[in-house]
Amino acid sequence: MTYSPANTIWVLLGAALVFFMQAGFAMCEAGFTRAKNTGNILMKNLMDFCIGTPLYWLLGFGIMFGAGTALFGRIDPFIMGDYSAVLPAGVPLWAYAIFQTVFCATSATIVSGAMAERTKFSAYCVYSAAISLFIYPVSGHWIWGGGWLSEMGFHDFAGSTAVHMVGGVCALIGAKILGPRVGKYGSDGKPRAILGHNLSIAALGVFILWFCWFGFNGASTVGMDSDDLILSAGLVFFNTNLAAALATLVTMFFTWLRYGKPDVSMTFNAALAGLVGITAGCDAVDPFGAAVIGIVCGLVMSLSIGFFDKIVKIDDPVGAISVHGVCGALGTVLTGFFATGVSTEKGLFYGGGFRFLGVQALGVASAAAWTAAVITLVFLAIKKTMGLRADAADEVMGLDRSEHGLTTAYAGFAVLPDGSLAEETAPLPEHEASPAPVLRSPKEKAPEEPVYTRVQIICRPGSLEGLKAAMNKIGITGMTVTNVMGYGAQKGKPEYYRGTPVETTLLPKVQVDIVVSKVPVRQVIDTARSVLHTGHIGDGKIFVQEVDNVVRVRTGEEGYDALQSD
Amino acid sequence: MTYSPANTIWVLLGAALVFFMQAGFAMCEAGFTRAKNTGNILMKNLMDFCIGTPLYWLLGFGIMFGAGTALFGRIDPFIMGDYSAVLPAGVPLWAYAIFQTVFCATSATIVSGAMAERTKFSAYCVYSAAISLFIYPVSGHWIWGGGWLSEMGFHDFAGSTAVHMVGGVCALIGAKILGPRVGKYGSDGKPRAILGHNLSIAALGVFILWFCWFGFNGASTVGMDSDDLILSAGLVFFNTNLAAALATLVTMFFTWLRYGKPDVSMTFNAALAGLVGITAGCDAVDPFGAAVIGIVCGLVMSLSIGFFDKIVKIDDPVGAISVHGVCGALGTVLTGFFATGVSTEKGLFYGGGFRFLGVQALGVASAAAWTAAVITLVFLAIKKTMGLRADAADEVMGLDRSEHGLTTAYAGFAVLPDGSLAEETAPLPEHEASPAPVLRSPKEKAPEEPVYTRVQIICRPGSLEGLKAAMNKIGITGMTVTNVMGYGAQKGKPEYYRGTPVETTLLPKVQVDIVVSKVPVRQVIDTARSVLHTGHIGDGKIFVQEVDNVVRVRTGEEGYDALQSD
Amino acid sequence: MTYSPANTIWVLLGAALVFFMQAGFAMCEAGFTRAKNTGNILMKNLMDFCIGTPLYWLLGFGIMFGAGTALFGRIDPFIMGDYSAVLPAGVPLWAYAIFQTVFCATSATIVSGAMAERTKFSAYCVYSAAISLFIYPVSGHWIWGGGWLSEMGFHDFAGSTAVHMVGGVCALIGAKILGPRVGKYGSDGKPRAILGHNLSIAALGVFILWFCWFGFNGASTVGMDSDDLILSAGLVFFNTNLAAALATLVTMFFTWLRYGKPDVSMTFNAALAGLVGITAGCDAVDPFGAAVIGIVCGLVMSLSIGFFDKIVKIDDPVGAISVHGVCGALGTVLTGFFATGVSTEKGLFYGGGFRFLGVQALGVASAAAWTAAVITLVFLAIKKTMGLRADAADEVMGLDRSEHGLTTAYAGFAVLPDGSLAEETAPLPEHEASPAPVLRSPKEKAPEEPVYTRVQIICRPGSLEGLKAAMNKIGITGMTVTNVMGYGAQKGKPEYYRGTPVETTLLPKVQVDIVVSKVPVRQVIDTARSVLHTGHIGDGKIFVQEVDNVVRVRTGEEGYDALQSD
Repeated sequence: MTYSPANTIWVLLGAALVFFMQAGFAMCEAGFTRAKNTGNILMKNLMDFCIGTPLYWLLGFGIMFGAGTALFGRIDPFIMGDYSAVLPAGVPLWAYAIFQTVFCATSATIVSGAMAERTKFSAYCVYSAAISLFIYPVSGHWIWGGGWLSEMGFHDFAGSTAVHMVGGVCALIGAKILGPRVGKYGSDGKPRAILGHNLSIAALGVFILWFCWFGFNGASTVGMDSDDLILSAGLVFFNTNLAAALATLVTMFFTWLRYGKPDVSMTFNAALAGLVGITAGCDAVDPFGAAVIGIVCGLVMSLSIGFFDKIVKIDDPVGAISVHGVCGALGTVLTGFFATGVSTEKGLFYGGGFRFLGVQALGVASAAAWTAAVITLVFLAIKKTMGLRADAADEVMGLDRSEHGLTTAYAGFAVLPDGSLAEETAPLPEHEASPAPVLRSPKEKAPEEPVYTRVQIICRPGSLEGLKAAMNKIGITGMTVTNVMGYGAQKGKPEYYRGTPVETTLLPKVQVDIVVSKVPVRQVIDTARSVLHTGHIGDGKIFVQEVDNVVRVRTGEEGYDALQSD
Repeated sequence: MTYSPANTIWVLLGAALVFFMQAGFAMCEAGFTRAKNTGNILMKNLMDFCIGTPLYWLLGFGIMFGAGTALFGRIDPFIMGDYSAVLPAGVPLWAYAIFQTVFCATSATIVSGAMAERTKFSAYCVYSAAISLFIYPVSGHWIWGGGWLSEMGFHDFAGSTAVHMVGGVCALIGAKILGPRVGKYGSDGKPRAILGHNLSIAALGVFILWFCWFGFNGASTVGMDSDDLILSAGLVFFNTNLAAALATLVTMFFTWLRYGKPDVSMTFNAALAGLVGITAGCDAVDPFGAAVIGIVCGLVMSLSIGFFDKIVKIDDPVGAISVHGVCGALGTVLTGFFATGVSTEKGLFYGGGFRFLGVQALGVASAAAWTAAVITLVFLAIKKTMGLRADAADEVMGLDRSEHGLTTAYAGFAVLPDGSLAEETAPLPEHEASPAPVLRSPKEKAPEEPVYTRVQIICRPGSLEGLKAAMNKIGITGMTVTNVMGYGAQKGKPEYYRGTPVETTLLPKVQVDIVVSKVPVRQVIDTARSVLHTGHIGDGKIFVQEVDNVVRVRTGEEGYDALQSD
Repeated sequence: MTYSPANTIWVLLGAALVFFMQAGFAMCEAGFTRAKNTGNILMKNLMDFCIGTPLYWLLGFGIMFGAGTALFGRIDPFIMGDYSAVLPAGVPLWAYAIFQTVFCATSATIVSGAMAERTKFSAYCVYSAAISLFIYPVSGHWIWGGGWLSEMGFHDFAGSTAVHMVGGVCALIGAKILGPRVGKYGSDGKPRAILGHNLSIAALGVFILWFCWFGFNGASTVGMDSDDLILSAGLVFFNTNLAAALATLVTMFFTWLRYGKPDVSMTFNAALAGLVGITAGCDAVDPFGAAVIGIVCGLVMSLSIGFFDKIVKIDDPVGAISVHGVCGALGTVLTGFFATGVSTEKGLFYGGGFRFLGVQALGVASAAAWTAAVITLVFLAIKKTMGLRADAADEVMGLDRSEHGLTTAYAGFAVLPDGSLAEETAPLPEHEASPAPVLRSPKEKAPEEPVYTRVQIICRPGSLEGLKAAMNKIGITGMTVTNVMGYGAQKGKPEYYRGTPVETTLLPKVQVDIVVSKVPVRQVIDTARSVLHTGHIGDGKIFVQEVDNVVRVRTGEEGYDALQSD
């Protein structure tokens, strides 16, 4: 047999798991950003993979693994060439090609988090293509494709540098060029917290990523048919898990000490920091080394997020720069300290000299420099031509609407106004507060003044459409609708939850407020009743109340005029 | 050794992944439908698997794989017979049985999406049972169990036809017989968009399905112990991924061109279209063929969804008919064009004749005809006996409540009224809008008329229950509760999010509106204060305002009478 | 070769899947509890793994697998010793160590569900550490580490007792010592339903757990390189799935019969009951045995949840005691009835005697006794020192805020007041309801009395911050903000959802209510207009209405004084 069942199963299992990291990134990035951008961030996470896959087939794989020079592989459209020299033993070409494709897509997907909530979708598609087509494959060639770094003995087992730091550097440059989200920094320059909208799915994303990392790191042995490979795979699994756990643990304590309470979202981030950090050396260090790498990455990530947020003032909604960029570089360099010699030269702390450490540092620096240079050109070219950043008004409204025409990713849920999105208001005229209470002036209104009356209708949610239509017909052109809960004689049917009866005393209702002057109040009441009346308990109530004045903000019209149709 | 470790690991890994598609379908279908039906659709996705599993053990497996005739396997209750003739090399019976069980369940679960939001749960259980027990096993016998189609050389590697098209045809017939959801088509016959309630979990569902498809297609080699099988598995992985990516990409551009913006939910659907389409021929075509199949499926799915929605007017909430039915058939036929000859006869474009293409078309047509005939009988029998469709009022209220007594799948979240669910209102009396403003008539109320007073209480959410109880005791029988946010001197404790202080100036409050006449206002105020008073900032405020009239919709009572208990 | 590719791949695949159960538990527990505790429960699920991992490395593994006595392994810090005697054939140490680590963490994570929504986070970290460090390893040594139970022939294939029952017993003791959640039991002692906040993710959690159970049970063969192991793995997969499906099915019918409708959340729970129950004997029984075990576990779980909820009155928010504790014990004992002799002694129903059944019962009893004794000491020690239960006020507010300073796990979503959380109110003064309507007294207010005016502003959500700032400047210190929807002339841009235009007639707006006396109404209106005016349709409206009285609850101040700043 030419091919090895064990090796190919291992590589394909790894490919499936690394593909599934897309789900992890999508959930993580969606959960840590705001609901109004959810559709957009999900699309970006989907599309980087769907753009990257054909482009990596088209050129990326050849550039990365083609037998070219120390700097560049080959232009080999659609992977038609002979790769037998670089294929892992016993693994067929297409199995290896899919394995490498999913790694490439991971690098591209990292960027979307740091640039979330303000990047144009079209611009995203373009720079994501550039990463998969060119940027990642070239540095990937240096590191894994037989290029100059691999020749020098640079060790990046599963891609702390090749995948994560490359993505993180793109994230850093991108977030810097974009600028912070509207409302992220106050006029005093202090950062404001912009909470993610769904920690449940963000946490799920982290768990998915951790799970898939067993494929990312474990399957990077690209074989399981020798004692060495098997031993290595076991160690990789144990180290990967240990580093992630300790990074998380130490970050929890760090936030506890520093902010008084253990921070949920930062702690979840820390798991990823540990995973990124151990990726370069998970086969090369022992569990003690893995533990230290995890701990260091957790601490550095925690400090780094604050550093970028508060000092450098680069707005990174999900912490991608610190997690992938900083910890990717850090883990690669730390391998130069902690490598035991089992799969590489020995690290500095294990009796090796400075040479290996130096190569690790050089690899990090050169990959970072390459990535930074090219992605800067790409971003600037996008900025000059199609534009990189969404319109500010669109950003405030949310990219779901502006970029995708998606009303909301959570149809049917009531959402709160977005406090942190306030546009900086123009300086206001200083009014002098009047010193004494205003006294009642009993003749405020002339007897002939028009009456403005508020008719407040409380009814079933399902009756809203009919009520709207009926009010339209009698000339009501504006109304305010509020979700309320009615408490009253109308009880819900008895319902059970896990065998225990549910007390339903508050029933969902809709409150419709209509202020009329021209249309007679009696007509509004009669029309409402004719629509709402079913004869059953729960038909609702109507309250009538006088209003003293009405102002239309846009025109400044007051009273009767303010109530006429725009 | 009789059994092969590689083959059995491969098959069992595939079984686990294909099982997990249930999660993908559940999330996808729940996310693309409305929140009020979430519990119901989750239950349906769970139950088709839980019903299908014992029934496939009871009869399905024997019907599908028993050594019977060209049309039908054997009645072999509980898989007691000898299947050594059909078992893949080196795979034990129970491993193969679980692998086939999860494929069967996939077929059944497809239907729930197209028939979502209006099908009775009991009816769902019955037809789902019919699919697993009988419909799927019979056509499965033809295709995979040694029946007449497999004898003719029909090629459906992992089930574009056997699994997906069979599910899709059931979905089509079911959705047609059911009719559209209330509110889906306006009185002008035009379709209305009914938004899914949770795109995050819908997207997660798509990612899960894509991930699991590596098991669905990849493990369908049912072995990994020869060079041919290993080569095939690698190609299958690469092709599957490529077709899905290109289907998604092309659909994104299609929606961008056609609707002006890239549509999120249609694009996610497209990934599934590509996956379904490549399933029949993923081992038989090369990557170019896979790319074309993906592109064609993406485009056809996009057009097909519009076709069923706007022309045929069959309401398919999640697009299951187009994705599974149309693309399942399409992918099977396209294999007849693009097969390279590696695992089948050559396709038409690769030098084969029309015979193979004809067999592919015949297989699709015959499986569709069989499925359509039997499922129509099943649906009509259900309709005549237990009823297929939920009561319209239950549908408007939501199946969670009516079918499961589940108040809501999202307890604690405020939800919006469902605009698209408006019942068509009866023609309204045409009122003549009065031509001039109503003038104030200062003697509207006689001095002895009863006063209706609104007491509006703003308090802490946690105090609501106590307030309700206290108001009940003094004879208040109705109140309206609204979630509001209080802004004021009471600041929240400083809180940190990822190390950045969170500005909390808006605190959640509850506003309770009570309109009284009989019960003295002073008593309401005193009672409220006695319940709400803690002496801490944030106890709340009470506003008192006169109301001019009150109407009870059900009875037409006005004023004092309208406020008395029902 | 020393090591086996098949065995190691199998064990590592199992390790990855069992790790991923953490995601399943996290989603399940988060979904079945309330939104205000979501961040907390996610953190607990993350941290038990991150605490357990290093502690199991530090001591747990040695205690469990070290060659010690029949009662206890060895104190072997950091797994430095020689474990070749206990390692599965062909599996290297670190591969086995990670496999065992994730099993240990599963046991610890079970507890968080039963003790959810009221346990201090610090206390959680401590007792979780105790389980991983000591409790689980000791009984694990008896069962799997060569201790006295394994010597006697006790059979617990993948951990019904060793993992699940141990976790379930800790859950039982913990929930008992903690006491029920505030509001769980009424003053009449009857349980009240407290609904979970997100059934979608709860259901996802169950699907994830089922998926991962194929690794949990399947990979517990810890090898795939012999016919026996391969046969066993296939049977384990089939049995595991069948038991889960039947437990679910029978529970659905049970709830349907008993409560009139099939209960969603109980039915999802039942899948886990079946999985836990079959775990001990999945390799030892045939599919008929598996079917019976599944059915029995489903029924017993359903009854057990009611028993603990209504009779014993132990509040277990997610049903962990019944699912893991009761069904874990039950499944282990049932193995003593249904074992066919394929991998153990024969069970009572298959011709074996009472000895094997007795050993199974003894194993359950002794592991339960050990666990109960030690965890009781741990809980009592925590209670005496740092405290086990969160402050009642914190519990009502939600542990996200109190324990983590997390405003909400769902930022941007409007939430409803938590009805079931009412503090028991003090007995209220009995007011005599006045017998007759209050008549209008036209001279209620003296002409010189101060006027209180409500200015109600309806505006764009994005304008809220600016409005707040402007109002602050003119001395407005309190306002009430409500999310409303405006219906009017301002139509949204046309948007498409899956190619169908979306009708957007209700636009999100914010309603700000300000009641003023000192500050002139005109100044409020002018200031609001200066902030809100953009000249575009949709700038909003302002309504002015007189208020008759204002009361500040905390101080009892009325009228003018009640409106001045605190």
